[in-house]
Parts: sequence; C-alpha cells; structure tokens
Amino acid sequence: MANVPHVVVVGGGFGGIKLTQLLAKENVRITLVDRHNFHLFQPLLYQVSTAVLSTDEIAFPIRAFFRKNKNVDLFMAKAKGLDQDKKLLLTNHGEIPYDYLVLAAGATTNFFGIESVERNSYGMKTLQEALHIRNHVLHMFERSNKHQDDEATRRRMLTFIVVGGGPTGIEEAGALSELVEIQKKEYPNLDFDEVSIKLIEATPHVLPMMPQHLQDEAVNVLRKKGVDVMLNTQVVDNDGENLKLKDGTIIPTKTVIWAAGVKAVPFIAKCGGEVDRAGRIVVEENLLVKGSRDVFAIGDCANFCHGTERPLPTVAPVAYQEAVVCARNIMKLIRGESNLEAFHYKDLGAMATIGRGEAVVSKTSMNPEMTGFLGWCAWMFIHLFRLASTHTKLTVAIKWGWNLLSGIRLGRIITNIKLEDEMPNMMKH
Amino acid sequence: MANVPHVVVVGGGFGGIKLTQLLAKENVRITLVDRHNFHLFQPLLYQVSTAVLSTDEIAFPIRAFFRKNKNVDLFMAKAKGLDQDKKLLLTNHGEIPYDYLVLAAGATTNFFGIESVERNSYGMKTLQEALHIRNHVLHMFERSNKHQDDEATRRRMLTFIVVGGGPTGIEEAGALSELVEIQKKEYPNLDFDEVSIKLIEATPHVLPMMPQHLQDEAVNVLRKKGVDVMLNTQVVDNDGENLKLKDGTIIPTKTVIWAAGVKAVPFIAKCGGEVDRAGRIVVEENLLVKGSRDVFAIGDCANFCHGTERPLPTVAPVAYQEAVVCARNIMKLIRGESNLEAFHYKDLGAMATIGRGEAVVSKTSMNPEMTGFLGWCAWMFIHLFRLASTHTKLTVAIKWGWNLLSGIRLGRIITNIKLEDEMPNMMKH
Repeated sequence: MANVPHVVVVGGGFGGIKLTQLLAKENVRITLVDRHNFHLFQPLLYQVSTAVLSTDEIAFPIRAFFRKNKNVDLFMAKAKGLDQDKKLLLTNHGEIPYDYLVLAAGATTNFFGIESVERNSYGMKTLQEALHIRNHVLHMFERSNKHQDDEATRRRMLTFIVVGGGPTGIEEAGALSELVEIQKKEYPNLDFDEVSIKLIEATPHVLPMMPQHLQDEAVNVLRKKGVDVMLNTQVVDNDGENLKLKDGTIIPTKTVIWAAGVKAVPFIAKCGGEVDRAGRIVVEENLLVKGSRDVFAIGDCANFCHGTERPLPTVAPVAYQEAVVCARNIMKLIRGESNLEAFHYKDLGAMATIGRGEAVVSKTSMNPEMTGFLGWCAWMFIHLFRLASTHTKLTVAIKWGWNLLSGIRLGRIITNIKLEDEMPNMMKH
Repeated sequence: MANVPHVVVVGGGFGGIKLTQLLAKENVRITLVDRHNFHLFQPLLYQVSTAVLSTDEIAFPIRAFFRKNKNVDLFMAKAKGLDQDKKLLLTNHGEIPYDYLVLAAGATTNFFGIESVERNSYGMKTLQEALHIRNHVLHMFERSNKHQDDEATRRRMLTFIVVGGGPTGIEEAGALSELVEIQKKEYPNLDFDEVSIKLIEATPHVLPMMPQHLQDEAVNVLRKKGVDVMLNTQVVDNDGENLKLKDGTIIPTKTVIWAAGVKAVPFIAKCGGEVDRAGRIVVEENLLVKGSRDVFAIGDCANFCHGTERPLPTVAPVAYQEAVVCARNIMKLIRGESNLEAFHYKDLGAMATIGRGEAVVSKTSMNPEMTGFLGWCAWMFIHLFRLASTHTKLTVAIKWGWNLLSGIRLGRIITNIKLEDEMPNMMKH
C-alpha cells in the first residue's frame, strides 16, 4: 500500500465524494480530508432550518460511503494551507504528504464585506448554521409569546427576513411561510397578523438562471403564500435589532437569513494559485490549478472559465461532472500520459421548490419546463434519488408525504436554548 | 378565560404531559412551564447517544400535543422557586401566579457528590447530553485514527466506560458494543482489539428490579457482545484521562458515561417542602406536597412512600399513573370537594434491551417473563406504542427494522467538533 500513489482530497462534498468513489476502484491510496465526518446534502439544508427534516437525513457519515474500499481513509481536520514544493497539505492536525491533491473544499457565505451584516445575520451553508436558524426562529415565537403587552417587541421578533432571490432564498422563504402556518395552530395567545416574512433581492429578478415567466411564477407563488417579495432592494446594515436598506428604510427584526451569495472557503486563497473575486481558484481546462502539475480543483472552490462567458455556477452538477474528469486525469498522470482531458459542462437546468407542492423547473434537452405540483414532484424525485442511502430516501419520502398531507413538522424542537438565551450573537457561527 | 382556575404545571415529561392532556378537557386554564419546547422520550435517549435514532424522533414539540386545546399555553422558562404564600411560581422569565401548581419537573444525574466524576463524566438525562456522548464517542474513533504511532493514546481513546447496571447502563453498554461492530468495517487502519467497553456496577447485581436469573441473562448477553461487566466495583475518581476504582485500579479512558443514579432537579429543593436524600419532595397519599393544599408533585421529583417499603421508583409508569390521580384531585379541589383520592401504584414490571434482538422482560400479572428476540419484540412494540406521534412511530419502526437487518447507523455524524476539539470539558453540560 505504501508504494502506490497517494491522492489527497480536501472536502467531502458532492465533488470530493464522487471523485473518491471513482479513484477508490484504482490502485491508489486516498485520504479524504474534511473537518466534518459527514457529507452534507446542502440542497436540503433549508429543510433542516425550517424543521421539515432532521440533521441525520441530510448528513451522511463519509466513511459509510467507503466501507468496501480499504484504500480510502478519512482524516478529520481543517485544511490550513499548501506547500506545493514539498507536496504537503497543512492541517490543524499536522501535515499530509501527497502525490496528487484535489481541492474540493466548497464555498461559504459571502457577506460582500458588510461587517455588521456578517456579525448579525444567519448564514446557510453548514449544518450548524441550519440548526441555528431553526432554533432561533422557533425561539422567536416562544419569546414573543411572553411579551403579551409589548407589540413592538413582538413584531420585531416575528419579522423574518431572507436576503437573496436565488434558489436557496426562494426555498427558505417558502418553507418559512409554511412553518408559520403550522405555528399558527399552536399559539392560542399570539396574533399571527403580527408575523411578517420578507424576501429581499438586490436585482429586479429572482432566480436569475430561469426565464422571465418562471421568475414571475416564483414571485407570484411566494406572494400568495404571504411572503413580501422586495425586488431592487439593497441591504446596507444590520445591528441585530434593525435591518437598514439603501433607501434608508429601517425594518425592525432579529432574524436576517443571508442567502445572497457564496465565496470559496478562505483556505483556498492560501493554496498559492490565482483566485478570483469570490476567492475561487482558477483552473485550466483539464482542472489542474493554473501553473500546477499535481494540484486539481473542482466544484464551488474552482473557477472554471473556458468557452463560457462567466465561470461555471456553484451548483452540485458542476462539481459532480468535474469529479469524473478529474479522476480520469489523475489516472492519466499516474500512468505517465500527458494528454489530459478537457472538461465540458453539460447544463442540467435549474429548479427551485417554493414550499410543499410548488416548484419551478427550467426546460433542458432532457425535460420540459414544469411548474406547480408537477414541478414539485420532479424536484422531489431528483432530490430523493440523489440522497446518499436507500434508508434515507425512504424516511425522507415518508416525511415529505406526511408533511404534504398533514402539514405537520416534527422537527420543531429548540436544542440550544440555554446558550442562545444567554449569548445570542456568539452562538451563530 | 381569565376567571377560570389557573393550573400551572412545571415540566413536560411523561407526568406533566399526561396531566395537562387530562386537565385540558376541563374548564381550567393551564400553563405548562418547561425550559425546553419539547417533550423528551427519555427511555430512548441511549439510542440517540449511540447514533441509532435522530433527536427529532425522541423529542416532540410540546405545543403539538395541545393543538386542539386553546386553554393550554407553554411558557418556556426555567423554574427557579416557589412563593407558596403569594401563590407564585418564580422563573428566569418572571413570576407566574397559580391557583393550583403541579411539580412534574423530573430528575437529573446523581453523581453522589464525587466532584471529579461529575466534572469529567457524561450524564445521560437530556437530549444535549445524549448528543455530547454521540459526538464524543464518534470523535474518539477519528482521533485515535490519527495516532497511528501511539498505542497507549489509542487505547485510552478507545476505552469506553459505562457506570451503573440499571436499565440505562445495560442498554447503553449493549448499544455501544454494536456501534463498535459497525465502526469496525470503516476504519481500515485501526486495530479493533484495542477497543474496550466496560460496564461498572457497585453492587453484586445488574437490574436490581429483576429476578436473579434475568440479571444473569443480561450479564451473559453483554459479555457475549464483548462488554467487560465488572460487578462489586466502585468508582472513586475521574480526572478525564484516568478512571480510578476503590481498589486502586486505574483505567486510562476519556469516556465515562454515568448512569448510576438520579436525583430530583435542584429547583425542587427551593419549593418549601420536605425533601429526601435524592432531593425528591415528599407527597401525601393524595399527591399533595406535604403541608400544602394547592401544590402537587408527581413523577421523578416526588417521593411517594405510602404502603411501600421504599419510595416508588423513578420510572415513566409511576409518573403517568400519578398524573391521572393528580388531575382528578385538582378537579375535586376546584369543585370544593375535600375527599381527595389516594394514589395506588400498579406495577407494570420492568424491561431492558441489550442491543438489537435481545431483551429481558420481567413477569407481571399481564405478561409472562420474556428474553431474547421475543423480549426484544415486546420491548420494541411497547416503546413504539408510547412514542408521541404516528409519524414518529413509523420512521422509528423503519429505522429499527433497517438497523436489525443491516446493522447500519446513519446517525453517526459529529455535530460539535469545533467546540469539542477546543474545550472538551466545557461543552458537556
């Protein structure tokens, strides 16, 4: 084992897992480095944050993918940097020597440098963040219920803002509005006219990757669900009690969920390659980091811009398809071949669900455009199909079916009250 | 509403929920006070701590029990004390006036005053504690995997101690041993002969409420599963690295799970009644706190000792049955009747499961003695039946079935690594 090539993969997201699965069949040794021991199904994070699904249903133990692959090991650590000359990955638990390295470390929330917003808003990229949103939102109902004689405080606590009109923002706002419907039945002493959900988008459009009429459809569905959709609206400040807009408007709120942008994880900037404005490392057509012969980058942390006007989007299908080509190119290098394969992205379209029973799905070469319940069914089947295990597919399918029929959400438990109560801002990150 | 009698119930455990359900049908107003917004199914906590079940499956939102009862509200707060003269419950979110009060606040871990053990061992009474155990145990495997050249460190990390031979300790040790079997398949670079699980019991017997031959059966099954059962063994110290026994033996370990005893929550001692050595408040035959005319106590926090040699045990059936009589007695007081009903406990026997497919169930007037797979089926059906919602029954049944057939545990995710890594001892309580 010691003499076979050692491939180190940083990140157990869609790209990292797929790549490791492919390489596991070859005569190589693979170390997957991740600071978590689980693969996170990020597209469904919003369902954890709104109490539809449990953590375990979207987080799958990384080692469970590789039970049958004795040449794969997990090294649970935080990547800190790269020494390309000595071929060493630096982590908070020591250095790892590599023959080939793949950066598949993913993205984090981009607050675009607005410090007050970063400090006082909720990101939505990690499992912990989704749990913090869930705990915080549920807690707001309990807390406002204790302020029977203070309408202003209640309204502030019951105003929930989602910033960003991409799929994540749309899905979060839709799911929140349905959560409110459920809460309505269980607070005999709260006036639900005081509850307000706002979706704030800086541009004139939601879902920029979709045609105009699907964008309009999404906005209409959200408004029907009671979400106040504010287009052409920019956020400039958030002190944790009041959100300030560019036009000077102040919205009293304790809940700002930031889904307005992503950037590569900061570690990527310490890898010695060229990075773009969003911190993504620039790769060649063959997915090698520009200027390197043994370091690749794939997925959200890579800037692939060959034959396209803009870098490829930060979505799962890109990472997944890049992993396939990256695995082949690593094997070519190992075999001493120099004719590396160029990556070509096959666009699979876009979809966003807007609560139960409603979704918009864009047309591709493989499927027609879909909306409403049909779109939602398509969305559901694709997501179920992609979930990591049969067992999870089954329990998630039951939960979704149950939720569709009964509207119940059993995940509405607050698990960190003590800490949140005492230090609301410290616990968010 | 304001003029109907106001009943305040402290605690949303088995007793508090049952009582509130019964009173909700009457012309009273009920405020349930709990520091959590969920009811916890404590008998299955060990399954969360060993990654079989998810948090949401054993925690049920309290408000969901009372969707149809507009006369019930939850007040999420920590009870601090009682002013019996002014008829006020004191909480960390203010005072609540009551006409009748029921203490159903439950129990916490009893470390019997051994400070070092309390500081460095894991309790198993709350959802957070169960999660801490899960995170810590899983983390021990990841951490030992990084110490390939240090056997002593690895062995210390891979030694898991459960203290206490009651049902909780037995079930935890059995479930841990099965968790190890699953881990075995996924760590190609770890030697599992270095893993050790020990169950330590101070007396000569496990499961004291069972007949001798069922005690022996439990010990045999545990030993077959590789658990080192140590009877007549007393713990005197735990510094977080080494556990010290009364005979001077030192066991290097970072994991001591304390299931050796419970005591009433400390708040009970501030309620002005007589309390026993375990902090439980002494109640009359009619469940009124001794000397009071409007404060009742039921469940784990009450000492009921009438017609029995010892106080009734701290188990769910006692709380449940007491709730029924307590509700009737409150209604009698409201109606001005003085002939309060005396409580009589109907013993429903005892059961303990020892991993999947194995359990011991004692004989009662309703059922014969059972062991092995039959006992496990009985255990499973009773627990499924008692779970709060149909939906949960369904997903839990699927998980158990799946676990029985495949042995997989998808809950093996570590959700608090960052904090645990940096401050292992601070995060436990």
